[in-house]
Amino acid sequence: MTDQQAAIARHFADRFLHAIREKNAPVCVGLDPAIERLPKALLAKHAVDPGDTHGSAAVAAIHEFCREVIDVVAPHVPAVKINIAFFERFYAEGVRAYSSIVKHARDAGLIVIGDVKRADIGHSTAAYADAQLSDARPGRLPDGAIPDAVTVNPYFGFDGIEPFVRIAREQGKGLFVLVQTSNPSAGEVQGVVLSDGTQMSDHVGSLVQRWASAAGLVGSSGYSAIGAVVSPRDLPSTKRLRTLMPNCLFLVPGFGAQGRTAGEVAECFKPDGTGAIVAASRSVIYAYDGDAHKQAGASDWRCAVEAGCKEFVRAIRTVLSDR
Amino acid sequence: MTDQQAAIARHFADRFLHAIREKNAPVCVGLDPAIERLPKALLAKHAVDPGDTHGSAAVAAIHEFCREVIDVVAPHVPAVKINIAFFERFYAEGVRAYSSIVKHARDAGLIVIGDVKRADIGHSTAAYADAQLSDARPGRLPDGAIPDAVTVNPYFGFDGIEPFVRIAREQGKGLFVLVQTSNPSAGEVQGVVLSDGTQMSDHVGSLVQRWASAAGLVGSSGYSAIGAVVSPRDLPSTKRLRTLMPNCLFLVPGFGAQGRTAGEVAECFKPDGTGAIVAASRSVIYAYDGDAHKQAGASDWRCAVEAGCKEFVRAIRTVLSDR
Repeated sequence: MTDQQAAIARHFADRFLHAIREKNAPVCVGLDPAIERLPKALLAKHAVDPGDTHGSAAVAAIHEFCREVIDVVAPHVPAVKINIAFFERFYAEGVRAYSSIVKHARDAGLIVIGDVKRADIGHSTAAYADAQLSDARPGRLPDGAIPDAVTVNPYFGFDGIEPFVRIAREQGKGLFVLVQTSNPSAGEVQGVVLSDGTQMSDHVGSLVQRWASAAGLVGSSGYSAIGAVVSPRDLPSTKRLRTLMPNCLFLVPGFGAQGRTAGEVAECFKPDGTGAIVAASRSVIYAYDGDAHKQAGASDWRCAVEAGCKEFVRAIRTVLSDR
Repeated sequence: MTDQQAAIARHFADRFLHAIREKNAPVCVGLDPAIERLPKALLAKHAVDPGDTHGSAAVAAIHEFCREVIDVVAPHVPAVKINIAFFERFYAEGVRAYSSIVKHARDAGLIVIGDVKRADIGHSTAAYADAQLSDARPGRLPDGAIPDAVTVNPYFGFDGIEPFVRIAREQGKGLFVLVQTSNPSAGEVQGVVLSDGTQMSDHVGSLVQRWASAAGLVGSSGYSAIGAVVSPRDLPSTKRLRTLMPNCLFLVPGFGAQGRTAGEVAECFKPDGTGAIVAASRSVIYAYDGDAHKQAGASDWRCAVEAGCKEFVRAIRTVLSDR
């Protein structure tokens, strides 16, 4: 490996773009495992008591579900996003399962985004960054049990995420700063109009671009280790954010179940087809609950997940080829 | 107990105000335990290897430290705030220690604020609320291992915190929404000027007041189960926020080590002396490192922590009596 190849191998955005090209799929699958929606066969296998969805049997079922989903989607997508909230529900047992699933996904060759939405100030945010993003923990966790990147919250300004940035720089990791989210009340804060006529999400986008373009963070691909979570709200705001943040990979949640359409996510990409990673969660991981699957009459839930994943990848490829 | 007494006993803000009156101290002690700053005697007792500050020995030392600090401060203060970031650094072991410390503090009769700064959207934030604030987990954790209240982040708007509000209402719990924080770069987001000439923190404060004043959330004290994290920046902004949020208890971080002074925190209280809970962390829990302690020549670190705690309480009482 040349020095330049080694540098690319170490830079988060360069690695991500390489993985996207290999799979021809600028996407990731979101793992938000709710015990209530797991395949009935899996719940039965682990003897999950419907009246006790917080116990060890539930953790075991979720653990197996996530491992199986990862094995099924790994040939088709470059990355998974794992939401820690669904593991925190099980306290220590859940946190242990989260680390195990992160490792399983990384061992499967996937880029792993830990969807942790952390941030705090000073020593506290340093502790979060250490916990959630740093590999440098000799002997504490097995290799690969920490994600390649995490999501963080911008409300504290730069020093709220600075320790994450430091780890990204030193360890070839990444982060995605929340800019615009997909929930109904997001506009209450993110949509507020500022004195210059722009919106709060534009302002946060400008901040993120400034942070992202700092020395040493932009890889040979032109993208930074600092990306942005951008859920399309309307075409003008998406175009504006894409222009405001030329060095940022967009992590685009909400495709499928959260209602974002192909036309909406198209604007998250640059004209060359790079710049965004579209995430789908429920439409893939619970595909066995969907009408399409029921009509097809397939018996194994894994086949439905694989079909859902391939359908998702196809839809995003169509988005790009139709531009 | 009459029905009215029972209602007061169940409402978070009413309980908090009662506890403040009992101790004559509108304060809480922040537990942000950094292994590097623990008393040398305690590190030696647990044989913490200075080259491995992530291991089980470190967790055991932090666990004992927090229990001892709680026992020392419990006679003097109504509440503690426990920052989960310092426990997450130890993964599953750390999360288990966090629950144990929460329980120890609640068993000691203290109100416990879990400083978790969570928020997300939809099912994810419901999972966080379930994990961090809900007692309704039969058989999973011992009674009292979940805090009375937590801190949450407002960036998603109301639906990002709605599941926390629902639990607060149903279980007599509370939450404190971040409005203005004490870190140097807070102004990058919170200080942005809006089209009406106010600042982002004012806007968030107005939102929090609207959420806080909703039916069923305001107790007989006039304060809501939804409070606000407000770190004083300057006197005008503190006065403005105090006026904007009449139904909100302010959780005021940064007294002592983070540099907030008596005059600055005074404006967080209403004229009747209610409305704020001032938090101090490092100036109390690491008091044995301070010059005052070294000059006093006390040998036991617990004595220094108790002296630091009493000094903190005295300082806040002076703030109120000098108004």
